[in-house]
Amino acid sequence: MPSEFHTTRRIEFSDTDMAGIVHFSRFFVFMEAAEHAFLRSLGTSVAGALDGRSVGWPRVGASCDYLNPARFEDRLDVRLTVMRKGTRSMTYGFEFRRGEVLIARGRLSTVFCECAPGQPFRSIPIPGSIADQISESSEEEGGDDAEG
Amino acid sequence: MPSEFHTTRRIEFSDTDMAGIVHFSRFFVFMEAAEHAFLRSLGTSVAGALDGRSVGWPRVGASCDYLNPARFEDRLDVRLTVMRKGTRSMTYGFEFRRGEVLIARGRLSTVFCECAPGQPFRSIPIPGSIADQISESSEEEGGDDAEG
Amino acid sequence: MPSEFHTTRRIEFSDTDMAGIVHFSRFFVFMEAAEHAFLRSLGTSVAGALDGRSVGWPRVGASCDYLNPARFEDRLDVRLTVMRKGTRSMTYGFEFRRGEVLIARGRLSTVFCECAPGQPFRSIPIPGSIADQISESSEEEGGDDAEG
Amino acid sequence: MPSEFHTTRRIEFSDTDMAGIVHFSRFFVFMEAAEHAFLRSLGTSVAGALDGRSVGWPRVGASCDYLNPARFEDRLDVRLTVMRKGTRSMTYGFEFRRGEVLIARGRLSTVFCECAPGQPFRSIPIPGSIADQISESSEEEGGDDAEG
Repeated sequence: MPSEFHTTRRIEFSDTDMAGIVHFSRFFVFMEAAEHAFLRSLGTSVAGALDGRSVGWPRVGASCDYLNPARFEDRLDVRLTVMRKGTRSMTYGFEFRRGEVLIARGRLSTVFCECAPGQPFRSIPIPGSIADQISESSEEEGGDDAEG
Repeated sequence: MPSEFHTTRRIEFSDTDMAGIVHFSRFFVFMEAAEHAFLRSLGTSVAGALDGRSVGWPRVGASCDYLNPARFEDRLDVRLTVMRKGTRSMTYGFEFRRGEVLIARGRLSTVFCECAPGQPFRSIPIPGSIADQISESSEEEGGDDAEG
Repeated sequence: MPSEFHTTRRIEFSDTDMAGIVHFSRFFVFMEAAEHAFLRSLGTSVAGALDGRSVGWPRVGASCDYLNPARFEDRLDVRLTVMRKGTRSMTYGFEFRRGEVLIARGRLSTVFCECAPGQPFRSIPIPGSIADQISESSEEEGGDDAEG
Repeated sequence: MPSEFHTTRRIEFSDTDMAGIVHFSRFFVFMEAAEHAFLRSLGTSVAGALDGRSVGWPRVGASCDYLNPARFEDRLDVRLTVMRKGTRSMTYGFEFRRGEVLIARGRLSTVFCECAPGQPFRSIPIPGSIADQISESSEEEGGDDAEG
């Protein structure tokens, strides 16, 4: 059962700002894209239907620490780690690297919800078809290994 | 009956790119925001319900010519002109200026549609409550006046 | 000396996603825009020149907690609080509300840097012309008052 | 000498809006990304140095016609065609398809410029190292073939 996932991201011109580097808000888009690629790799999708109900993963928290700037046409390695698998929620950690250089480290907390049109989102248990494919990483968050 | 509308737009840091200027794609967001402010000024909204049906204005065409760069913290004057009012569609023209300097000139064509979830968009007549408030501009498009 | 700042933000169509709510990454853009409006209110700017050197405020950390969704055309009240004023860095807190409803709460940590083209960013002391105009909020972070 | 280029683009969640489809402004980002991938495929880059001068390709015009909506996780085929190769400018045409379905058709006009910091952009001839690798498409724009 996977507890991590790897992908890459090519920096586009529109990701940059007048400081010549990737705008800090873009890393949240990159995290989300990696999360969705992870869910796709499990044969599921972030937005879909479950027993005829419209379901999704609204975010409850997001954070990022910026260690080194990324620039146009950089190809970043993105590593997603399952930090916590709850009954109704998931927390992912992310590391962005260009070669050996650690660019940024982020986190995303999401809740599995029924998203009926015109209704408030309502958290529901993550179905076994998804949950049974995911395991929590045993890695200590922010531990020495992560810094390597 | 208004055939034009004026608003302003402050350029934000995230609108810029590594060339130090506003990214060209952002002008389409600025046009849309002006269109929506225009519709709000008429007491309507771009996304809403009409007789219980979900309606909206999907775009069928958009274009922009870039004459001078805009930069961070510029305050642009945005002028919307109703170029064509059809039975089911609207075409707007836009001019962006910083003081006397013409920055960009754009166009947006939209169709009034019923947007039922899970259904293809279907064009419907613009209701009188909106159409009766709008008149076409008599100004020649791209005429000398527009260059002033 | 101000330790907080208030502004508003109208949600635009392009801020939303297919879940019908504001995309979570947009709140980081909203925070930055409020930060820059705050700096402008002090007569300074986020990107400029200091004694002929190019200076700026690269971000070192950003986070946001999402409590309630925001939607198209919502007009959010944005409250910026100076959480920490360092010699070379600033940490801001943010609250987004729609009327009485708390939508999101965020934080942004920035470092004052010389940003010479082609050089790594280098932190430098915040000049007195800026620092002397700002005071730290005495409010306890995340305290009961903040929840009000 | 290539006169066209093919790539693909996976639609991300942040590309969508509350109408459940890709926001129209995103297609301009997709066009630019394809243009840059094309330039990379020639061994050059959109932003770089030429004989020690900072050069780039500011846009002078952009347009897009939207024929069918694209949705989250769609994998679009993107076809770039060199519509016009000038001495100092390039015009590209783009087609976006999902399988057989034509989603959108766009155009981008760019000018090769020296972009010195703090100076107005100044058009300069496209260097042979780039121009000699590109040929104009012989295809009639908007011809019947393009509709296939």
